[in-house]
Amino acid sequence: MDSAVIDRSKVTQVLANFVVASKADDIPEHVYTEAVRSFLNWAGCAVGGSIHPTLDRTLAAIRPFAGQGQATVLGRGDKLDLLHAALLNGISSHVFDFDDTHLKTIIHPAGPIASALLPLAETRLMSGREFLHAFILGVEVECRIGNSVYPEHYDRGWHITGTAGVFGAAAAAGKILGLNAQQMTWALGIAATQSSGLREMFGTMCKPFHPGRAAQNGLLAAHLAAQNFTSSERGIEAPRGFAHVLSTKFDPAEITERLGETWEISLNTYKPFACGIVIHPALDGCIQLRNAHGLTAENIASIELKVHPLVLELTGKTEPRTGLEGKFSVYHSCAAAIVYGRCGEHEYADEVVTDSKIVALRRKVRAEAEKGIHEDQVKVTITTTDGKAHELFVEHAIGSLDRPMSNEELDGKVRDLCEPVLGASGADRFIALCRDVANASSLMPIIEAGIPAR
Amino acid sequence: MDSAVIDRSKVTQVLANFVVASKADDIPEHVYTEAVRSFLNWAGCAVGGSIHPTLDRTLAAIRPFAGQGQATVLGRGDKLDLLHAALLNGISSHVFDFDDTHLKTIIHPAGPIASALLPLAETRLMSGREFLHAFILGVEVECRIGNSVYPEHYDRGWHITGTAGVFGAAAAAGKILGLNAQQMTWALGIAATQSSGLREMFGTMCKPFHPGRAAQNGLLAAHLAAQNFTSSERGIEAPRGFAHVLSTKFDPAEITERLGETWEISLNTYKPFACGIVIHPALDGCIQLRNAHGLTAENIASIELKVHPLVLELTGKTEPRTGLEGKFSVYHSCAAAIVYGRCGEHEYADEVVTDSKIVALRRKVRAEAEKGIHEDQVKVTITTTDGKAHELFVEHAIGSLDRPMSNEELDGKVRDLCEPVLGASGADRFIALCRDVANASSLMPIIEAGIPAR
Repeated sequence: MDSAVIDRSKVTQVLANFVVASKADDIPEHVYTEAVRSFLNWAGCAVGGSIHPTLDRTLAAIRPFAGQGQATVLGRGDKLDLLHAALLNGISSHVFDFDDTHLKTIIHPAGPIASALLPLAETRLMSGREFLHAFILGVEVECRIGNSVYPEHYDRGWHITGTAGVFGAAAAAGKILGLNAQQMTWALGIAATQSSGLREMFGTMCKPFHPGRAAQNGLLAAHLAAQNFTSSERGIEAPRGFAHVLSTKFDPAEITERLGETWEISLNTYKPFACGIVIHPALDGCIQLRNAHGLTAENIASIELKVHPLVLELTGKTEPRTGLEGKFSVYHSCAAAIVYGRCGEHEYADEVVTDSKIVALRRKVRAEAEKGIHEDQVKVTITTTDGKAHELFVEHAIGSLDRPMSNEELDGKVRDLCEPVLGASGADRFIALCRDVANASSLMPIIEAGIPAR
Repeated sequence: MDSAVIDRSKVTQVLANFVVASKADDIPEHVYTEAVRSFLNWAGCAVGGSIHPTLDRTLAAIRPFAGQGQATVLGRGDKLDLLHAALLNGISSHVFDFDDTHLKTIIHPAGPIASALLPLAETRLMSGREFLHAFILGVEVECRIGNSVYPEHYDRGWHITGTAGVFGAAAAAGKILGLNAQQMTWALGIAATQSSGLREMFGTMCKPFHPGRAAQNGLLAAHLAAQNFTSSERGIEAPRGFAHVLSTKFDPAEITERLGETWEISLNTYKPFACGIVIHPALDGCIQLRNAHGLTAENIASIELKVHPLVLELTGKTEPRTGLEGKFSVYHSCAAAIVYGRCGEHEYADEVVTDSKIVALRRKVRAEAEKGIHEDQVKVTITTTDGKAHELFVEHAIGSLDRPMSNEELDGKVRDLCEPVLGASGADRFIALCRDVANASSLMPIIEAGIPAR
């Protein structure tokens, strides 16, 4: 009991000591397995998002200031200094809103961490195992800090992927830099005092900017701490520290309890579809029925959905005109899923949303809220033109913790994201290398495979 | 009235429009005069602070990432990219806690803004008048946003110089970059979502880091906005924007009322002494009596002070052992003021604090709280060894708004700060150039004069 009391008054030091003391073999192998999946999902999102205009504008703005080409922007090949490469990777990995989700906090864990670590892997040799070890520790720090202030912190208006992410990036980078416990405590403090990112920015380029800055700022924090740049030693828990200033809730036990025994990365999930999580059950049901019964746009008379009320509230747009609006239309999403058998970023292209075949089909979709339907569930009834009704109840949508994407499904998602950038064989090669990261002696082959051929 | 209602719902746009539309001649000359004083005080602090170890550690950390040498770190001559030069200037200008103070909010206005603008003046030609115009606008934006959320925002634990400073830097840099109103609105939004800096960091290297990062982040915000990087258009006032997320008070009228008619920089003050503002009346009184009566350490029997209670609460350390502790000792401060006739950074050197002559004198200082004594006041009675008692009541301490430092006194402060770095004649030359900034066709001569001869 006494030790718990002491711990709670200095959780920053507890976290720092934990990260510094952790050895790669302390962590169970199944945790590494999930880390590989998180990394692969992140890498796919980063390569896929790298061609988004947000990246072009950021590069145009920062190129005059960037240092010598130390590190590669994944998916593009532009060479920048470490800090700016971290920024760009972080932006691209989040710009499609297709990255991983720690459902307990709505943190997208990988972005801030992997975006900082991959550039670092280009300037100092590290094995895939070292990389994953630091990555796992970063996720642990980030999500535990998130748990300690969630949901009040998020409700207040903070974009938690940015605010908590900076700690994860600092911890992971600090691990690679070999910080001692004092320096790691400072790194977390320097991270705390840069913690930022407002939910008001959702729907603008600043949203993906948040994980980018979290990666960059965390990386800077670790480098400053390595030079004995000082900060408070109680950056998280002090009365004027991160938790009390940025939240009205702080439960330090979320940080200290079973630290080193449970692993937050085990709670990570991956979106199979490039839209809000509320549409996922409906898409899952439509695709299952499509595949089971060979359904096509032509032979469908109607699609009826019984959904959780949030589906209509958030995605009830019946006549979307653009790809972005399509993401807020359960009608378009289901129509595209029937036609293409998937619903990735491609199915939200403007041309797909305005395609007359899709438009005709989406008008056959009816969605109705039903009491007792959980957010993760849906009842789908598809009636074909010959009058047959095909029904399916989805208990847990694909991609949820209860029904995670299989490795093959995840590979498929990443392939869809990477193909437009790397080509088909390039995407396959990139996926194979990411899959094997735990055995890699260096990250360089992955980075090189993530650059499109000229 | 209607327009006021409309304004309040979009104060970010109101501020952006104001900055974009402002012409140099819209601003009264006395405002420029005060801007020159603010700039000179800032420049002195930055040159003086440039030799602090915080700078060495920051430079060691960031040098590997810095871009090509576009801009000079004032007082050092190191050449870095714009963004990192802004960071370093901002740190050095605040590291002695000797910079300017907007007493209404405890913002140190110049740091975030001048630290961003001076590097910019090295890559694009601007006259001193253009520089001062942008500087004044930056102070206006920064302090008005501060006013709108103060004091709850500060009480909550935010270091307002950092959190509000980023807006000032973005506005000033955006003015120089020629942003249009849409882009300026985005720049303020990108600034809002980077707003950060915790009071928990006071007493560590992170404190001066805050204005440094505010300068750097604001400069980045302006450059991103110039490339049409989007943000919310209501970054300040929206329910999940800066004001509501980072404060429990938001008074938009503080931003919109009499905008363009009153000037916050007119409320700026400069510390004559290198310690907390609460000691200032006592030091002022001691130095006045010393000079009037030729007092020396040898001929003083006792120094009695009647002070505001906060003086004892904050600076009641009777036996300080280091320079930093000396700043929290009204006893040391008064003893040093008698011996040296001033109390600048030099008088808080470790050797001065432990000097036996000073130690003996500080033990003759007695301070007592007295009801009715205002924070800005003191009653000093110095009794000499021959039994004579010299009394003085200070109504307003030197450096306050009611009794501002004269230009000569300000020059003297800046000279004290600059001499250890630039030498005596170098300091004089630097001061003369800063004083004449309004007539300069370029800032380059000032920047060059701010570098020590090799």
